[in-house]
Amino acid sequence: MKHQQLGNTFVLLLSTGERVIESITAFCREKSISAAQFTAIGAVSEVELGFYNLATKEYAWKKAEAELEIDSIIGNVALFEGEPLVHAHATVSDSEMHSFGGHLKEAVVGASCEVFLTPLQGKLERKYDDTTGLKLIHFD
Amino acid sequence: MKHQQLGNTFVLLLSTGERVIESITAFCREKSISAAQFTAIGAVSEVELGFYNLATKEYAWKKAEAELEIDSIIGNVALFEGEPLVHAHATVSDSEMHSFGGHLKEAVVGASCEVFLTPLQGKLERKYDDTTGLKLIHFD
Amino acid sequence: MKHQQLGNTFVLLLSTGERVIESITAFCREKSISAAQFTAIGAVSEVELGFYNLATKEYAWKKAEAELEIDSIIGNVALFEGEPLVHAHATVSDSEMHSFGGHLKEAVVGASCEVFLTPLQGKLERKYDDTTGLKLIHFD
Repeated sequence: MKHQQLGNTFVLLLSTGERVIESITAFCREKSISAAQFTAIGAVSEVELGFYNLATKEYAWKKAEAELEIDSIIGNVALFEGEPLVHAHATVSDSEMHSFGGHLKEAVVGASCEVFLTPLQGKLERKYDDTTGLKLIHFD
Repeated sequence: MKHQQLGNTFVLLLSTGERVIESITAFCREKSISAAQFTAIGAVSEVELGFYNLATKEYAWKKAEAELEIDSIIGNVALFEGEPLVHAHATVSDSEMHSFGGHLKEAVVGASCEVFLTPLQGKLERKYDDTTGLKLIHFD
Repeated sequence: MKHQQLGNTFVLLLSTGERVIESITAFCREKSISAAQFTAIGAVSEVELGFYNLATKEYAWKKAEAELEIDSIIGNVALFEGEPLVHAHATVSDSEMHSFGGHLKEAVVGASCEVFLTPLQGKLERKYDDTTGLKLIHFD
């Protein structure tokens, strides 16, 4: 992954085979980013999407090993137990332009992936929430 | 709904049962926000999406009462008759990761919804437009 | 296309019949914008989406001549051979709220299209990349 800073925004370029969530997480750890928002477009060769069942508090996962366009990734970065945690949702589409979406567990980059990440002043923190079973952003 | 300001961006956290459009609108009224852009991800338990028929100038509505992931919400805030009006489009997906989208009339939050809203300097105004039948952003 | 600047963000309003990629490109040329990110929502009367086949290095194109909602457009602007080049991906949906997505070649605006474009300090450049066959953002 390569990056360049333009004003307050980081442009991250991921190449074939790189992992989107892992790469953004590592970048935020390296730069000590404790709050951020980002968007991304590009293509994947593999993606794992989740659907959260609030009743059972479990994710259903669906993994696709196929070339897919990334129509949109919208995500944010917050600290969980002191470490940056990336939360992102994605829409991807196949060669018929049909769309699929959900919670983005991980994606392996196909041709390329362009991430525009803007750190926010201060910090965001996540804490495990018993009611939902999720690591939710927590304000004191 | 809870919120925290990080620099120029507000992070809004909506909990189970809260209404997305209503909550963002109320927040902007309270904060006297007259122009903003935002994105959101999360999950809904209910959502109403619209498809606008330009020929008849009427929306077709589709309401889903089901747990769905919010893959993306992209929206903005402008004033209409002096009051903040939220305009947002959404993509949601079901347990099979199939995506649905459209003009977001309203959504009731499922597990959680994270909104990142950035007010813009100055103001945006909407006016009713006869040609399209819509409240369009209007520049003097 | 009309526009208004609010702080560091340009709000671009496209009307029925205007072309999204062409209009944003012309705007960036006129304003000498050499790096930017943007989002857009609205509706189209015509759209052409691409799916890139990395093995053959060719796009498969799908053109729809129909009223469709723009659920999301996420894009960026960089210079290619000194001229602004818009790269955007889109999700659109039909009257049944079914979503389609991909690389956005071009879209003709239906009722309206609202673009929020934020120029970035400095510049981004694209160069043709032999490995992928794409014009990728290039950092020195």
